[in-house]
Amino acid sequence: MMKHSIAVLPGDGIGNEVVPAALEVLHTLADLHGGVKFETTSFPWNCDYYLEHGKMMPDDGLSILKDFEAIFLGAIGDPSKVPDHVSLWGLLIKIRREFEQVINVRPAKLMQGIQSPLTSPKDFDLIVVRENSEGEYSEIGGRIFRGDDEIAIQNNIFSRRGVERAMRYAFQLAQKRRNHVTSATKSNGIVYTMPFWDEVFQQVKTEYPDVQTSSYHIDALAAFFVQRPQVFDVIVASNLFGDILTDIGAAIMGSIGVAPAANINLNGKYPSMFEPVHGSAPDICGRGIANPIGQIWTLKMMLDHLGLDELGSVLLDAIEGVTNDGIKTPDVGGKASTQEVVEGIIARLRNMV
Amino acid sequence: MMKHSIAVLPGDGIGNEVVPAALEVLHTLADLHGGVKFETTSFPWNCDYYLEHGKMMPDDGLSILKDFEAIFLGAIGDPSKVPDHVSLWGLLIKIRREFEQVINVRPAKLMQGIQSPLTSPKDFDLIVVRENSEGEYSEIGGRIFRGDDEIAIQNNIFSRRGVERAMRYAFQLAQKRRNHVTSATKSNGIVYTMPFWDEVFQQVKTEYPDVQTSSYHIDALAAFFVQRPQVFDVIVASNLFGDILTDIGAAIMGSIGVAPAANINLNGKYPSMFEPVHGSAPDICGRGIANPIGQIWTLKMMLDHLGLDELGSVLLDAIEGVTNDGIKTPDVGGKASTQEVVEGIIARLRNMV
Ligand SMILES: CC(C)[C@H](C(=O)O)[C@@H](O)C(=O)O
Ligand SMILES: CC(C)[C@H](C(=O)O)[C@@H](O)C(=O)O
Repeated sequence: MMKHSIAVLPGDGIGNEVVPAALEVLHTLADLHGGVKFETTSFPWNCDYYLEHGKMMPDDGLSILKDFEAIFLGAIGDPSKVPDHVSLWGLLIKIRREFEQVINVRPAKLMQGIQSPLTSPKDFDLIVVRENSEGEYSEIGGRIFRGDDEIAIQNNIFSRRGVERAMRYAFQLAQKRRNHVTSATKSNGIVYTMPFWDEVFQQVKTEYPDVQTSSYHIDALAAFFVQRPQVFDVIVASNLFGDILTDIGAAIMGSIGVAPAANINLNGKYPSMFEPVHGSAPDICGRGIANPIGQIWTLKMMLDHLGLDELGSVLLDAIEGVTNDGIKTPDVGGKASTQEVVEGIIARLRNMV
Repeated sequence: MMKHSIAVLPGDGIGNEVVPAALEVLHTLADLHGGVKFETTSFPWNCDYYLEHGKMMPDDGLSILKDFEAIFLGAIGDPSKVPDHVSLWGLLIKIRREFEQVINVRPAKLMQGIQSPLTSPKDFDLIVVRENSEGEYSEIGGRIFRGDDEIAIQNNIFSRRGVERAMRYAFQLAQKRRNHVTSATKSNGIVYTMPFWDEVFQQVKTEYPDVQTSSYHIDALAAFFVQRPQVFDVIVASNLFGDILTDIGAAIMGSIGVAPAANINLNGKYPSMFEPVHGSAPDICGRGIANPIGQIWTLKMMLDHLGLDELGSVLLDAIEGVTNDGIKTPDVGGKASTQEVVEGIIARLRNMV
């Protein structure tokens, strides 16, 4: 019997609806499989925790999380309680950074039964590899002068190590897929860091002569995601550009509620973290209608990461079976509740595993 | 007889096809109107000029341009000849900055006869007001360390004056439209400059109590442009965010080839500059199929700016008449040449003015 220890952070808002939903699926999978067990431990660290304790997690939070094999996270942030930059940098981004989760992997593909807002979306199936530790999300900046003269400054910081790492990850992923990597740049406007990005891309690509490449400015690339997403295989992007592209990727899939993500630690020193692309959606929270698919597809990414790829594939098939049958939450045009979608997936799994 | 002196910079690639096309329209308008004349002077400053002279324009280029009432530009850049950051910063961005064209105005709307890639685009009609002088496009940055340790740094620089200016422009524009301004932020990830942006937005909006506001992170906003563009009126965005949003705006209109733009000088010291959103498109250059509508709609923005709003409206009607009749270039699903579209527009103008 293989045991896997998972730290669970439901977080804020609908995180508390879709995470329990996904855990039901996880435990069903374990029961059906028989040879694997998941020990899940939940931590109530979120904006309510902040209101009570003045911090997003206890001082030893990271050392508690460190010993788990993986972290399964819902969504963090509720600006009506805590300003976003406080809640996010006190938990989500803190974990990404401290646990050296330097890569954020975010697939987007046309899903059976889910209507894309595009008229002819063809059969797109792409993955954005987002640099997850540096770039535009930097801790260096501040303000100077007062009144009308005030200015705010913030550094973009790109390291060769960080950029190469993300690019190599993208190339190796492409080798297992359709052998194409697209680089997101903006070297015509952002003239120090982005030409550096381009230069590293030119160098790294020589290590993978079998992989085709292309490079587009982020503005054009964002437009191409709408006009012809089917031409892309793997896209490598900076922290900010990856963030923007993956929300567009979620939009063309039909809903941000279905998009999954994995924050990957590469050096084996810390756990990786699995969190969907969507946020805590305070506006629909408490109504039982949050789409659990982003969280459950994220679960599939966690299973793959734990070496349980077979369970992962079965799960993705079950998800698409259910969407194809029209058991869908309102955000993707259905009438089902979160719970009905989960029950649909579980019923299918019982027939499959 | 009112005379207007216009500096014309066709620039690179298809700029040399769509600018002459738009000038034909301009001169036809003048003939038909009778009471207005345009004196256009062309300058051959582009990447070929750079290859010959080692610079994008002569040393006195700016002082030559300074005396015109407006600048009408095609597209700059051809990376096969000159690296983009050299050509753009040596001409396009240089003019934007030196002539204090601090606002970039970019409308996007559903056009009659042009098919949007969105299944239900409703009747969107939005304008992005892009801060055009600072922000992420900064001249401060560099590199340090060698080899594996190399890092590249670039500053984002936001001034209160610059941000307020863009926001006030957006609010005043909204007052002439549907009274709604949306702010594009990313204060959850970019934690120095973007919270500053938000703070200024909160302050400026108190000056316009009749205008409704909303604020979204750029990732979500990019997705909303795909999911429900019809909810937006005026969007105010930083230099980079405005750049990205307006390419998505062009994509949902059906083609980057139709999107117009105006770089506005507010203090009256220098001319404003009118250039479409699209680039020089070296790939389709020379085939006579470039879509002239972006450039001609840009001409409409120039006419409006010169106080010739009536001519401007007539021109937009003529453009939509032609697209509605299916006289369209291949990028928007038609078979017409650049010249046929222009002739269609001119024929319509002869019946209208
Ligand atoms: C060519 C490039 C520097 C420019 C920009 O990013 O400003 C272009 O994309 C635009 O939108 O006008
Ligand atoms: C919440 C926010 C800081 C975060 C990010 O920008 O990284 C989110 O948008 C995401 O994509 O995970």
